[in-house]
Amino acid sequence: MFYKLLIAYCGSPYSGWQRQPNAITVQQMIEEALVPLFHGASIKLIGSGRTDAGVHARGQVAHFCSDLDVDVRRLRLSLNGLLPHDIRILEVERLQQPFHAQRDAVSKEYHYYLHLDPVMDPFRYGYAWHILRPCSRALLVEAAKHFVGTHDFTSYANEPNAGAVAKNPVRTLYRVDVRDVQGGVGIEFEGNGFLYKMVRNMVGMIVDVATARRDLGEIERVFALRDRRAAPRAAPAHGLFLMRVDYP
Amino acid sequence: MFYKLLIAYCGSPYSGWQRQPNAITVQQMIEEALVPLFHGASIKLIGSGRTDAGVHARGQVAHFCSDLDVDVRRLRLSLNGLLPHDIRILEVERLQQPFHAQRDAVSKEYHYYLHLDPVMDPFRYGYAWHILRPCSRALLVEAAKHFVGTHDFTSYANEPNAGAVAKNPVRTLYRVDVRDVQGGVGIEFEGNGFLYKMVRNMVGMIVDVATARRDLGEIERVFALRDRRAAPRAAPAHGLFLMRVDYP
Repeated sequence: MFYKLLIAYCGSPYSGWQRQPNAITVQQMIEEALVPLFHGASIKLIGSGRTDAGVHARGQVAHFCSDLDVDVRRLRLSLNGLLPHDIRILEVERLQQPFHAQRDAVSKEYHYYLHLDPVMDPFRYGYAWHILRPCSRALLVEAAKHFVGTHDFTSYANEPNAGAVAKNPVRTLYRVDVRDVQGGVGIEFEGNGFLYKMVRNMVGMIVDVATARRDLGEIERVFALRDRRAAPRAAPAHGLFLMRVDYP
Repeated sequence: MFYKLLIAYCGSPYSGWQRQPNAITVQQMIEEALVPLFHGASIKLIGSGRTDAGVHARGQVAHFCSDLDVDVRRLRLSLNGLLPHDIRILEVERLQQPFHAQRDAVSKEYHYYLHLDPVMDPFRYGYAWHILRPCSRALLVEAAKHFVGTHDFTSYANEPNAGAVAKNPVRTLYRVDVRDVQGGVGIEFEGNGFLYKMVRNMVGMIVDVATARRDLGEIERVFALRDRRAAPRAAPAHGLFLMRVDYP
């Protein structure tokens, strides 16, 4: 039996999604909460993808398999009772047909928040990147547009492990929209897939353009170079939210 | 010279606004940050009013006096550099004419946030009261309306110190509006003044009505009794935000 979880979490206190030997991660927290609810059986949770340390999620999806038939409403209630308040199970579904949270995902949506006021909002601290240089909203929108469509994103992809490059660096972004939020903007990315650190690297470039550190024309030039060193540093993790994962 | 500060703070880690002997408060944090900026002189900061432990502020106003002429832009920058991230000085004004943050205030606005989804939003934890019982939005709006206008609020006022009752318990609320926010509502109170714990006590009553614990008619009955024991318990501090203080 396949169980599908919809999960929200504040990433600040965690070393990312993926289980690690000497750090506390979101995957580990949920796996450990599942153990008593499945009679002590250890359960392997598979997420739609990793989120890095400090990255937040409003719509992470994960699945696990078990022969046990557990009521999904009670499972959600029990998991939320066992988990800390910064990790919440929003929905639990039980599926008869095979479901794989990572391989079956067809598109994802990420939001990245910028705080543009000179004084940081104390309620947004840890949830938005505070830009202290003058930042043009018009240039933000212009720069964001250049990422829409199908591109080779090699220049915007870090290598997750030394030497391991994604086999196919081509991805399609369906939309990159800039929306106003209190004190700043949210940049919304929707696409069929994202390479490692791709959103944060794109945001690094968009902010460089909007703060007049780079020309708009550099975006195309950096795409063409297919070299990670050509693009700016990644934007910090804490402004990034995984919002939604779609399945067929 | 009078200095007027506009302040935002997350109240969770503080024992309220007002300085206390054995607890860390917002007033104390700002007063201590002012000392080095005014050449070691100890400065007495006067807020528009106290906020209780755990209550947040987006628009607290405070003032202090000093003979020193300090540039307001640099003062804001320096204060924010010295203060922790959960207290931010949004604006600093220097006034020649006398200004008193508490006595000159003519109206205030508070918001109280309720989270109504069965699962708490991890990003709203500590910033909204999670209502687990079924809650009628229509009854929330109806109940809120009953508080608009001029009333004797004795039943909704706690005594700040044993025996010390406000001399005049009559206050006027200009509006009490219910607005939708993600996963719940914000109840917005605007009035010429608020007695101790008055907003939280009103929210306790509004939620009791909306969750069918009390009839709508009880609001008038409890007003007429002029007895704090007739009204429900105060709503928790963490859903409350001081949004704005107005001056002539």
